[in-house]
Amino acid sequence: MSDPASKSIPEGTLAEVGEFAVIRALMSRLPQGDQVLIGPGDDAALVRAPGGSVALTTDVLVSGVHFRRDWASPYDIGRRAAAASLADVAAMGGRTTAIVVALTAPADLEVAWVLRMADGLCDESAEVGASLVGGDISRSTELAITVTAAGDLAGRAPVTRSGAQGGEVAAVCGRLGWAEAGLAVLSRGFGSPRALVAAYRRPEPPYASGPAAADAGASAMCDVSDGLIADFGHIARASGVGVDIDSSALSIAEPIRAVAAAYGVDPLDWVLEGGHDHALAATFPVDAVLPEGFVVVGRVTSSEGVRVDGSSREGPGGHEHF
Amino acid sequence: MSDPASKSIPEGTLAEVGEFAVIRALMSRLPQGDQVLIGPGDDAALVRAPGGSVALTTDVLVSGVHFRRDWASPYDIGRRAAAASLADVAAMGGRTTAIVVALTAPADLEVAWVLRMADGLCDESAEVGASLVGGDISRSTELAITVTAAGDLAGRAPVTRSGAQGGEVAAVCGRLGWAEAGLAVLSRGFGSPRALVAAYRRPEPPYASGPAAADAGASAMCDVSDGLIADFGHIARASGVGVDIDSSALSIAEPIRAVAAAYGVDPLDWVLEGGHDHALAATFPVDAVLPEGFVVVGRVTSSEGVRVDGSSREGPGGHEHF
Repeated sequence: MSDPASKSIPEGTLAEVGEFAVIRALMSRLPQGDQVLIGPGDDAALVRAPGGSVALTTDVLVSGVHFRRDWASPYDIGRRAAAASLADVAAMGGRTTAIVVALTAPADLEVAWVLRMADGLCDESAEVGASLVGGDISRSTELAITVTAAGDLAGRAPVTRSGAQGGEVAAVCGRLGWAEAGLAVLSRGFGSPRALVAAYRRPEPPYASGPAAADAGASAMCDVSDGLIADFGHIARASGVGVDIDSSALSIAEPIRAVAAAYGVDPLDWVLEGGHDHALAATFPVDAVLPEGFVVVGRVTSSEGVRVDGSSREGPGGHEHF
Repeated sequence: MSDPASKSIPEGTLAEVGEFAVIRALMSRLPQGDQVLIGPGDDAALVRAPGGSVALTTDVLVSGVHFRRDWASPYDIGRRAAAASLADVAAMGGRTTAIVVALTAPADLEVAWVLRMADGLCDESAEVGASLVGGDISRSTELAITVTAAGDLAGRAPVTRSGAQGGEVAAVCGRLGWAEAGLAVLSRGFGSPRALVAAYRRPEPPYASGPAAADAGASAMCDVSDGLIADFGHIARASGVGVDIDSSALSIAEPIRAVAAAYGVDPLDWVLEGGHDHALAATFPVDAVLPEGFVVVGRVTSSEGVRVDGSSREGPGGHEHF
């Protein structure tokens, strides 16, 4: 972890401080790991790719669509922005080595917001040993953060979405429904239960479980970003199989039950359809020894589609952004 | 080159067609090269990194700041968006293997615009054998394109900005001033000379000259994106040296002279301060055999700063975006 408190933050807005001074302040806050051969400041960064290949994924978070500045601190928004891409690399069985970031922002945004957001990007990346190695910043009417992650598979075969086979087990690692419940709380103008709100503000994807699943022989894997039904649906479609989920295998935490009861919502909806926790959904051969943290929640079948307790359930196909 | 004409374009806006249908249409237009192990559609793409490292760079282009929809076709905007990142990788001595793209766009943007822009991204990438391997798309009030390039150095040592030494030669490869003159033409509401406008709309960076310069022993190199003075300034500062530019070595093309005369501008300003052509600025030991296309335009000195014909000339430090 960096120690942001020890670094000075220029006072004022982006327009007042100026792009180049902002970039200098940013660069002083970017710790660089061993895998970085050339860090920020040149035409491009250079990062080791010991496995001989590089995993690439990009995610854009737009203010008012993916986050709200009044719902989370810039630091937590940075952590969540990085988490979305880091979790994608983990879902291939890899580990992120570096991220690059493009920020578009209104000229009246406080520089302190940008630097604290960058601290969040760096600290979340540090969870997997990755560094923020480069970026770009531009004026815009709208605040948006694009994080691109590059990852290494350390020689492992990638775990795609298309390898699931009938008869295998379907398993999940990480939280389900927590962040979605937290979002529901925030959407109604509340700030507690704090555990749920915190889960939304700063997800804790099980990054190490992605490579562990690959090592354990996972046949298919997917980051749960659209919701468990939708994401097992992605695996099912790509693999030409089906997935039967047994809802009794899904633990529903007490705060989720309590809030769902208060709002008159079925808590299972959040668990089955919420995507903001960035859990991992995977399939394994029946004889595989599942890595710590994975829980069997169903079966892979030869009959296409995703069913919950035997009934077809069309989850949202993912967040339609238009 | 892909053959976009053979592929259907859904009619309507992003909102009318829907995100997932747009992504399906996009994915049908993305040719994948040999270096791609896993292309678009999974959590992350996977691309070969034979050199054991990966060069990473990201650039965001915002509508109204970096491009105007009424000044260029979506196809040319796509080509220019890709060029900015591909040129950065070339300036390290590398070759881009893959790009990922994040698009934020208003819901009323025509799908045809997005697909034609993507065609431009793909065709520009194809110039160096790179593929568009992944992306993200989100609703936004503002149109912006973030291109992240990953590149391979084929085992070469990277050419940074910090290796220039006093006594070396300063050289340039590629056009200077053409795009800046084209931008001046468009800014005044005109569409000709066509060669200049075309240079702005679709730059032709000398991609292959980056690795060639590395092979020829370039000691420092930089993409000319802020203008020749500013970019030799980057090399000078990073290397702790100075650069003396001899303006008589800079050829000024006839259409640039003609337009400059008509507008009452010194054409040398465009040549020395224009950045949109994405030329390469590099320094070489005096005994190096310069690769084809590089022209000696000055000398590296031990006295810091950039001078033109012996006089200090403070070019713009780069485009301040706020």
